[in-house]
Amino acid sequence: MLIVMKADATDHQIEAVVRVIEELGYKPHPMPGATRTAIGITGNQGSVDPSHFETLPGVAEAIRVSKPYKLITRDLRPEKTTVRVGDAAIGGDELAIIAGPCAIESRNQGFAVAEAVRRSGARFFRGGAFKPRTSPYAFQGLGEEGLRILAEIREAYGLKIVTEALDEAGVDLVERYADIIQIGARSMQNFSLLRRVGRSPLPVLLKRGLSATLDEWLLAAEYIMAEGNYRVVLCERGIRTFAQHTRNTLDLAAIPAVRRISHLPVIVDPSHGTGKNFMVTPLARAGVAVGADGLIVEVHDQPDHALSDGAQALTLEQYEQLVSEVRAIHEVIAPAAVT
Amino acid sequence: MLIVMKADATDHQIEAVVRVIEELGYKPHPMPGATRTAIGITGNQGSVDPSHFETLPGVAEAIRVSKPYKLITRDLRPEKTTVRVGDAAIGGDELAIIAGPCAIESRNQGFAVAEAVRRSGARFFRGGAFKPRTSPYAFQGLGEEGLRILAEIREAYGLKIVTEALDEAGVDLVERYADIIQIGARSMQNFSLLRRVGRSPLPVLLKRGLSATLDEWLLAAEYIMAEGNYRVVLCERGIRTFAQHTRNTLDLAAIPAVRRISHLPVIVDPSHGTGKNFMVTPLARAGVAVGADGLIVEVHDQPDHALSDGAQALTLEQYEQLVSEVRAIHEVIAPAAVT
Amino acid sequence: MLIVMKADATDHQIEAVVRVIEELGYKPHPMPGATRTAIGITGNQGSVDPSHFETLPGVAEAIRVSKPYKLITRDLRPEKTTVRVGDAAIGGDELAIIAGPCAIESRNQGFAVAEAVRRSGARFFRGGAFKPRTSPYAFQGLGEEGLRILAEIREAYGLKIVTEALDEAGVDLVERYADIIQIGARSMQNFSLLRRVGRSPLPVLLKRGLSATLDEWLLAAEYIMAEGNYRVVLCERGIRTFAQHTRNTLDLAAIPAVRRISHLPVIVDPSHGTGKNFMVTPLARAGVAVGADGLIVEVHDQPDHALSDGAQALTLEQYEQLVSEVRAIHEVIAPAAVT
Amino acid sequence: MLIVMKADATDHQIEAVVRVIEELGYKPHPMPGATRTAIGITGNQGSVDPSHFETLPGVAEAIRVSKPYKLITRDLRPEKTTVRVGDAAIGGDELAIIAGPCAIESRNQGFAVAEAVRRSGARFFRGGAFKPRTSPYAFQGLGEEGLRILAEIREAYGLKIVTEALDEAGVDLVERYADIIQIGARSMQNFSLLRRVGRSPLPVLLKRGLSATLDEWLLAAEYIMAEGNYRVVLCERGIRTFAQHTRNTLDLAAIPAVRRISHLPVIVDPSHGTGKNFMVTPLARAGVAVGADGLIVEVHDQPDHALSDGAQALTLEQYEQLVSEVRAIHEVIAPAAVT
Repeated sequence: MLIVMKADATDHQIEAVVRVIEELGYKPHPMPGATRTAIGITGNQGSVDPSHFETLPGVAEAIRVSKPYKLITRDLRPEKTTVRVGDAAIGGDELAIIAGPCAIESRNQGFAVAEAVRRSGARFFRGGAFKPRTSPYAFQGLGEEGLRILAEIREAYGLKIVTEALDEAGVDLVERYADIIQIGARSMQNFSLLRRVGRSPLPVLLKRGLSATLDEWLLAAEYIMAEGNYRVVLCERGIRTFAQHTRNTLDLAAIPAVRRISHLPVIVDPSHGTGKNFMVTPLARAGVAVGADGLIVEVHDQPDHALSDGAQALTLEQYEQLVSEVRAIHEVIAPAAVT
Repeated sequence: MLIVMKADATDHQIEAVVRVIEELGYKPHPMPGATRTAIGITGNQGSVDPSHFETLPGVAEAIRVSKPYKLITRDLRPEKTTVRVGDAAIGGDELAIIAGPCAIESRNQGFAVAEAVRRSGARFFRGGAFKPRTSPYAFQGLGEEGLRILAEIREAYGLKIVTEALDEAGVDLVERYADIIQIGARSMQNFSLLRRVGRSPLPVLLKRGLSATLDEWLLAAEYIMAEGNYRVVLCERGIRTFAQHTRNTLDLAAIPAVRRISHLPVIVDPSHGTGKNFMVTPLARAGVAVGADGLIVEVHDQPDHALSDGAQALTLEQYEQLVSEVRAIHEVIAPAAVT
Repeated sequence: MLIVMKADATDHQIEAVVRVIEELGYKPHPMPGATRTAIGITGNQGSVDPSHFETLPGVAEAIRVSKPYKLITRDLRPEKTTVRVGDAAIGGDELAIIAGPCAIESRNQGFAVAEAVRRSGARFFRGGAFKPRTSPYAFQGLGEEGLRILAEIREAYGLKIVTEALDEAGVDLVERYADIIQIGARSMQNFSLLRRVGRSPLPVLLKRGLSATLDEWLLAAEYIMAEGNYRVVLCERGIRTFAQHTRNTLDLAAIPAVRRISHLPVIVDPSHGTGKNFMVTPLARAGVAVGADGLIVEVHDQPDHALSDGAQALTLEQYEQLVSEVRAIHEVIAPAAVT
Repeated sequence: MLIVMKADATDHQIEAVVRVIEELGYKPHPMPGATRTAIGITGNQGSVDPSHFETLPGVAEAIRVSKPYKLITRDLRPEKTTVRVGDAAIGGDELAIIAGPCAIESRNQGFAVAEAVRRSGARFFRGGAFKPRTSPYAFQGLGEEGLRILAEIREAYGLKIVTEALDEAGVDLVERYADIIQIGARSMQNFSLLRRVGRSPLPVLLKRGLSATLDEWLLAAEYIMAEGNYRVVLCERGIRTFAQHTRNTLDLAAIPAVRRISHLPVIVDPSHGTGKNFMVTPLARAGVAVGADGLIVEVHDQPDHALSDGAQALTLEQYEQLVSEVRAIHEVIAPAAVT
């Protein structure tokens, strides 16, 4: 914490701030400048609440310096984490590809897509059984029935299943049928849910919230890890901005930003990140080129008839093309992106 | 839904779109223009999914026209709703004031603030027992112990209690002790929670999410009402923007925007909406002047020692001053704001 | 400037940073903490460029502490500035009202609106002769012909004329015919233009840019003042956010934020700030209630036939009603807003 | 234009809207629906102003359908434009690389960087002589002296010179010394300047404004082309969002979005787009992978001593590495990105 005093702060006011810092058990470091005095604070464990200072007379600003996360940091664990799921992995040398429909709609649809996903060499299958929908009148997913289809797909194709849980009861079910629990963007700060999956034996795919800062996203991961579950995969899926040519603005700079601070693997969702079919492949290429550990992509055997998010789903052919393009890029940049 | 064809769309492509519309059971209305053709769709119940059309050959854009909400609209109920809580009300002629600390920290603190809230003539007391905190290491509230203190305050001062629930177990507890269940900004799209409070006998105070559009916010209210609970109060509490001089950007235009569409009462939170002590009173005045049905304000007997959000809490004296200022404005504008 | 070292920074790296600070002629203040060291910098005139430090080994972050503006600050001039224009003023006790059409379209239109503006007791008339239009094919204003009509209106009604200049040639013309030069939102960082009006004898109305931070806006005013023109009026007119229910999001918290730092008067534009006729009056009330020194409002005698921005222009009757409502609020809050 | 009537609009109100449409010389297409009527408008040349309708009784919304640009569209010119500059080009098969320092600071600095740029095989050199700086007290560039150094660099290394003009006088100078005129983000809606460069014999590099929508950006290009200069290169350089881990949020989805509508070439600026040295290379890779026609990158021989934007400039070694990485990606994706 750094306390910046106003230009006209009196010596008396500066001393008062110093005294408050000492009373809180910290060490003050006054630095008189040409026009104003700043006072550094050290000796704190964890972060200091700026509100102790902001309203004291003569104080212009209280600037937070240290970051409130620990477990997610490279300070704690310098080498990158690889999240292993059976014989598959996210965060290792291989590019992780998670593909499948937005929502599981039927056994036929699930198997048709899974067939293509398996053929592409991807190791992970996605499909929603519980769908968070903006409108209460929209299709909300097949529920446990959808999970059962997913489990069959795992059986049939050896794909690892990634699926979303919306609440604690949903986590119980997902744990029974799937391999990775997805926490969606709208749930990124559902702290009860984060704590629950923090006690799960399954890895967690944590999507960034629509308006989450980097710190908020990393702290959501910290919630999960603080409960003991260290197998967290971050997923950039676009943020909300003024731009209207996409559903969200895919913030690919988040990938190197996460890398610099955290040892956790991070992947990109070009489907929700754009919301437009024709943008998915170019942004998937960009996501791999920027250094992501993987992709999560929506694929549908009949996008025009999809019950949710059809506009962004790739056809099976488009998906196949995407995989071949991103693999080519991954080969070329692999050594560069490691850092 | 309006389908806009590309300038170079062929007659054949236009006919194909018309056919798809008919197959879906709707009525197409082709409108040939100078440079391009548009095709209107009517005959639909509920909204049409644009994804049925966006990928068809020759289609430039599919524009959604009808809105997906019903129960919240003035189309359904032209007169404004007043949410009654015993002998108090939100949405009536009187300005509703909800005041209290961010978090209940102790019996002493709660009573000291409640005393001042009661004296000001406000009818509602707010205080958090379960706090959604960005960091897992921050103070998370007193839990049921906090709720018990709130119930004592209700007993002692006759104030109606407003407090947040973070999950379904929390709703069970809040129903036992409080008068209004608050759904916080981070939970605005926690659809399981919305459905749960939709089945509660208590009214719900629904805060707008940090990045919620007007439609998403109104649809969150629709989720609650679709379960049968019609006593919903909306609360504008600031949105996330690039601006850094406040914690959030208070979007006061949301008040007339809600009014035009919905019969539900809407209040303003100038405390979270700014995050700065010195801005709370000016923005509270603005909130009343713009026509809000009430305010929710953070007050603390010792803001410098608050365990959460101290920087924005008013002192008891500042709060008293705020109440007198906003009452004066409410008297002056009351007839104007009714519309 | 505060340099925050990484947790694993070596003593050697810390010394290297200290040495760079000394070489630049500043004074370093190392503060060893429990987990990491921070180094304060004093002795600088003006702000220090963080890029001197951000790429040095062991540095985690360089945090800017002092602000780069001087002339606009209350540090320099504690009392509020009143910008006088003949016998009228902005920033004094009286609420300043600037009203008129978006664009001057004809002598008849100008006079019809001016008549009503005069009758309302407002002292300032606005009307665009040069219109910055997003499309090259949209009506761009009457140019000098429009300025001549404005000058006639000044003659006929004794109103002070506020009109926009888009470039240096335009400033020459506006200086000949008008009383206040408006710098529009899109020109807020047109630095050549700012310097030009900084050398003008006329006061300047400086609108906030669509995506301007508080600091950028204040620095734009600093550009004007640095050239010698101290008569600057700031104008909040809405910022660009994700919200779609308004054309812009009116950021009323900017008013107290400006007040706290600057002695310059600040007004609100509820017309561009919302873009919707039915929101103008509520937001005008809010602008006055928050403590603005005045309003700038679009009025048209026939909004349905306006050549630009008709959707947000008030009719003459609506304008009259607005004036009476905001006057009532101004009377009530005047003493409160002074601070 | 599509007019959506309110659910309770009367037949009389619908007829009134139809009449207004006819009076304006357009053709109305009423479409009665289950709950409300919509009225399509055709027969217009150019776009219809929604304000003619928004305030009519019974109207809920007026939705703009057709886009206001022409010259930039693929409707007009289906094949991609290649902007040729002597023997170099942007928009052709080869990846265009524009590199150099943010500002020309001295002859030595310019030549040191140009040497490396030439060695890398890039064909374009960038360097600012006129710098738009947020603060009036920051380094504003060497002016004509800087342009002279740039002209010497052209002579010595055969590089094409790209440099920014801030105003019309600046364009006169830049035309004398350089090969491409850059219009910076802050000038994207400086319409006088756009018209001036629209009459220039030099090609224009048009950066996207910090808060520009896709349409606003394309209309800025339309301003230039409407004056007769068809050699426009678009440049995505990041937009302003809430995210704080970068200086701007690089919106790479803008590349496929532009491609779909316009024939103009589009490049990416990963330096301003991130503002952080360590992110430039990953985002440059992503920009090429997404399908951009080129990159503009800041390089400095001594970034720690740069007079502006040092934090984001690459060292000569980092730049060399970047070029080899993006070339590898360009080779791999070239056929894919063509579409």
